[in-house]
Amino acid sequence: MATLICYEHYQQRINDFLITKIDQLTINDTKLLDAMRYGLLIGGKRMRPYLAYITGEAVSANIDDIDAVAGAIECIHAYSLLHDDLPAMDDDDLRRGQPTCHKAFDEATAILAGDALQTLAFDILANHTFTSTHKPNELPIQVRLIQQLVSASGYQGMCGGQGLDLAATNKSISLEALEALHSLKTGALLKASVLMPALCGELVTEDQKHILSEYAQHIGLAYQVQDDILDLISTEEELGKPVGSDVAANKSTYPALLGLQGAQNKAENLLQQALQALARLPYNTQSLADFATFIVKRSH
Amino acid sequence: MATLICYEHYQQRINDFLITKIDQLTINDTKLLDAMRYGLLIGGKRMRPYLAYITGEAVSANIDDIDAVAGAIECIHAYSLLHDDLPAMDDDDLRRGQPTCHKAFDEATAILAGDALQTLAFDILANHTFTSTHKPNELPIQVRLIQQLVSASGYQGMCGGQGLDLAATNKSISLEALEALHSLKTGALLKASVLMPALCGELVTEDQKHILSEYAQHIGLAYQVQDDILDLISTEEELGKPVGSDVAANKSTYPALLGLQGAQNKAENLLQQALQALARLPYNTQSLADFATFIVKRSH
Repeated sequence: MATLICYEHYQQRINDFLITKIDQLTINDTKLLDAMRYGLLIGGKRMRPYLAYITGEAVSANIDDIDAVAGAIECIHAYSLLHDDLPAMDDDDLRRGQPTCHKAFDEATAILAGDALQTLAFDILANHTFTSTHKPNELPIQVRLIQQLVSASGYQGMCGGQGLDLAATNKSISLEALEALHSLKTGALLKASVLMPALCGELVTEDQKHILSEYAQHIGLAYQVQDDILDLISTEEELGKPVGSDVAANKSTYPALLGLQGAQNKAENLLQQALQALARLPYNTQSLADFATFIVKRSH
Repeated sequence: MATLICYEHYQQRINDFLITKIDQLTINDTKLLDAMRYGLLIGGKRMRPYLAYITGEAVSANIDDIDAVAGAIECIHAYSLLHDDLPAMDDDDLRRGQPTCHKAFDEATAILAGDALQTLAFDILANHTFTSTHKPNELPIQVRLIQQLVSASGYQGMCGGQGLDLAATNKSISLEALEALHSLKTGALLKASVLMPALCGELVTEDQKHILSEYAQHIGLAYQVQDDILDLISTEEELGKPVGSDVAANKSTYPALLGLQGAQNKAENLLQQALQALARLPYNTQSLADFATFIVKRSH
């Protein structure tokens, strides 16, 4: 229960932070700014920010620094949804039970709002005053955070994964190829949600970062496996978007490759591996463990 | 003549730099990488990189640092062209005499390639080892460069200008509104092409930055005025894209608001103001003066 209260608390905190960031932008085109606000603030579970906050807690990072990290990551996530939903991509009309951005506004505005939200992610990191200092011989924290975010979100991360996803549509691909695809498409940004806060915790060792990275890798995949399962067995009301869209789009999924039971076993297996990784860390990782469990047990 | 040789030299230099950056990306989806390469490397006058190099020369910045600055700016410019050409935006089939990226590939790939090129811009800056050191109490050069680039390219810069442009289509707007639009849409990135190299020149004073900014503001507007004039009087062969597209798209232009002669006078006037700004600087600014003249006198 404590974790649940905490989840809502951090949801509110990141929403407040993002509203402030949007409101700080000078108004020169209301429609574009409205579309950015819509894409960033309408609904959203804020899972990545939550993961960033609880990792930040575990490694004793400054919470104001985590605001910037979580805000930047959520801007990248929001821009990717705006673009993924476009007619030329997944052509989705609903997102979180609401019209997608290009439906609520128009296609040109949705493309542009996505572009500007990506820039805003780097804006937030570059213009935040971080409390953590850097050692001589070490790059400043902002530069290391931006390095981490570009590698998670660009061609070698999320965008590359989306490219693989486009290439895999209407094709049957191997389990290995499906994992490679998801570890980029959704896994890379989830991993950044753990590794960027870890950079803000000044006492985190390289070995501990490696373990956190393992944890993130497992929950990233588990998240995708569960997503595929929910697309098959959930209801439209629960999901806030049409069910069966993977099958309709002829996409390879875990249940398609492993069967429903096989996919459920895989999710459980990944959860256990995530928990085992956490057990090797010297911090209080209860929230991270609860989060891993939530990812696999969620129904929407 | 010396300037012309220099232009070609720097064109080659930035192309080599960008090819290296693209080639360094791990290959996990050939089509997406091909589209990024296409968008970034097929043709292009490389005006912004050239402006960055000659500003770097004037302020005695390290040329390897300018590679990174010019490369990042060109990635932003290239991504904006990929997205501006899309059917939902300007719906252009030709760019630099070649099929636009969504024609050569497909719409989804062009959107994604643009996204990944924006990320690559920040990647280049965050991962470059800059020679210039920073004073105590001053943010590291990388952070200041990224701050400059986000402000030039995001909602408060290029993206915001494109938003104003979308809003102004099929509407008649005032000369003042047209200038505000262009100073964001194309002016902001041209200004960054001068101000970012100025940050790399360690002895540039705030006052000199202000003068360089004035110069950039004037040539940015002059560039747009000349662009509007060429769209009216040039041939498709010279431009590498259909002429009269502004009129066809019902866009407000300088010749429409001022008449052809009025627009030509305005371009000449802006050139004189740019040259007057340069005359107040203590460096050798011959190349910058030649560039301003080229902008107004060009025929394509």
